Amino acid sequence: MASNELLRRIEASFALQGLMRVIEARIAEVSPGRCVIEAPFRKTLTQQQGFLHAGVLTTLADNACGYATLTLFPPGQEVLTAEFKVNFLRPARGVLAIARAEVLKPGRTLTVARAEVWMRAEDGSEMLCAAMQATLVPSATA
Amino acid sequence: MASNELLRRIEASFALQGLMRVIEARIAEVSPGRCVIEAPFRKTLTQQQGFLHAGVLTTLADNACGYATLTLFPPGQEVLTAEFKVNFLRPARGVLAIARAEVLKPGRTLTVARAEVWMRAEDGSEMLCAAMQATLVPSATA
Amino acid sequence: MASNELLRRIEASFALQGLMRVIEARIAEVSPGRCVIEAPFRKTLTQQQGFLHAGVLTTLADNACGYATLTLFPPGQEVLTAEFKVNFLRPARGVLAIARAEVLKPGRTLTVARAEVWMRAEDGSEMLCAAMQATLVPSATA
Amino acid sequence: MASNELLRRIEASFALQGLMRVIEARIAEVSPGRCVIEAPFRKTLTQQQGFLHAGVLTTLADNACGYATLTLFPPGQEVLTAEFKVNFLRPARGVLAIARAEVLKPGRTLTVARAEVWMRAEDGSEMLCAAMQATLVPSATA
Repeated sequence: MASNELLRRIEASFALQGLMRVIEARIAEVSPGRCVIEAPFRKTLTQQQGFLHAGVLTTLADNACGYATLTLFPPGQEVLTAEFKVNFLRPARGVLAIARAEVLKPGRTLTVARAEVWMRAEDGSEMLCAAMQATLVPSATA
Repeated sequence: MASNELLRRIEASFALQGLMRVIEARIAEVSPGRCVIEAPFRKTLTQQQGFLHAGVLTTLADNACGYATLTLFPPGQEVLTAEFKVNFLRPARGVLAIARAEVLKPGRTLTVARAEVWMRAEDGSEMLCAAMQATLVPSATA
Repeated sequence: MASNELLRRIEASFALQGLMRVIEARIAEVSPGRCVIEAPFRKTLTQQQGFLHAGVLTTLADNACGYATLTLFPPGQEVLTAEFKVNFLRPARGVLAIARAEVLKPGRTLTVARAEVWMRAEDGSEMLCAAMQATLVPSATA
Repeated sequence: MASNELLRRIEASFALQGLMRVIEARIAEVSPGRCVIEAPFRKTLTQQQGFLHAGVLTTLADNACGYATLTLFPPGQEVLTAEFKVNFLRPARGVLAIARAEVLKPGRTLTVARAEVWMRAEDGSEMLCAAMQATLVPSATA
């Protein structure tokens, strides 16, 4: 599929996710088997110590894995998360969260993907804050 | 610790979480080693097929595990999530999400907790939609 | 299915697992959606500090989850593990390891099961040493 | 630490693991933050369909993560697995299982490592069969 078509298809699905607007996330890059999603640090999305909430890092990583997987599906299919595991490696501080996912093993029934969530500081440096390993399955379109 | 004191302590930490206001979550119950957190279904918190987003279910389960763990810590300590794994069992539809967590094994360094997220329908029936197993660690207060 | 038939079917699959003989494991109980597998503590199965190796606890828990799942499948199907997550809660010392599994959510494609591995001491007391959450899928018979 | 010293230290711990002899595993490579462990395919280590048992792949990956972590600890410390998650990507057939691990995030309390288990066929080609993400903690020497 042409890269523009792929991006349009992923963005069409992404736009249906209410939660992505709430956390101001956007798709930064997409290519076959890969997806990068970014969201700005917001005080409204913190845990009790002022870091970005584990739930937000997880949401970004989950979506990056989901759309990295969807790039490998034929048009007209959607993707669901069967399960994931996340390690939180450092407190998530900075100005931008960047979830980078790639498919480790595509499959007709089960796809396994990994994502890493990096926090970018004001000076442009990045720290790895979370690592996800996820299993995704195809589903009918909504 | 008296139960009222425990609830006050958990709610004080909870109130510092910006994300909890965004998803309109509230602590429904807390007792030593246990915590229940609820949040209403909102269209703003959905994935692309109109179900509550996996990231929201995860956020609720994570917080329920975290506060179930915090009930066992001495006052003046906070809790951080080291890692978790979640299985998503059914699409999350209904009017209320209820995350019920309990500590499986407390520890000075590592605490292991489990949470289940149930979706309550308008008729009051509940379906199990997600199951988490998490590792939590103590941290200094913010 | 009659309980004897169920046990025979599970034991027929179990007997095909070379690894079960190596760790001297046996099926202690089986009923629809549940399975208990036991194995004696052996010095040959330890890690570097003399405790039962995490890999052995995991093998027992994995098999207990697998056979708990297989009880819910029609005859002529086999089961494969898609993934699992295990927390190790305490060093595994004692005379007998007992893995108790139950299906949390059966499914045509994905089944989610949980297992706990307990170590029984000489005095008959038991300690919870590991907790697994697993995803299983049907597969063709060998 | 000199590389020979590192290898000696890892092998001294490895030699204490009864289970490693049972599965005929050996350390193939070790360097700071990395470890490779190999074991031959044996019919005695299979599941019911004749593939290498998930428990064996997990044992190899767990040990590779553990020793990748131990390379970063000061002499006189041991390492324990707090938890791991494994996805099984393909049936494990071939002549040799190779678990390659690296530390993703070292830490004083928690270290996060990843391992991949590859099966090598007779023709030398390799297939990725399992992927682990693990959390490890220091412990006193035995």
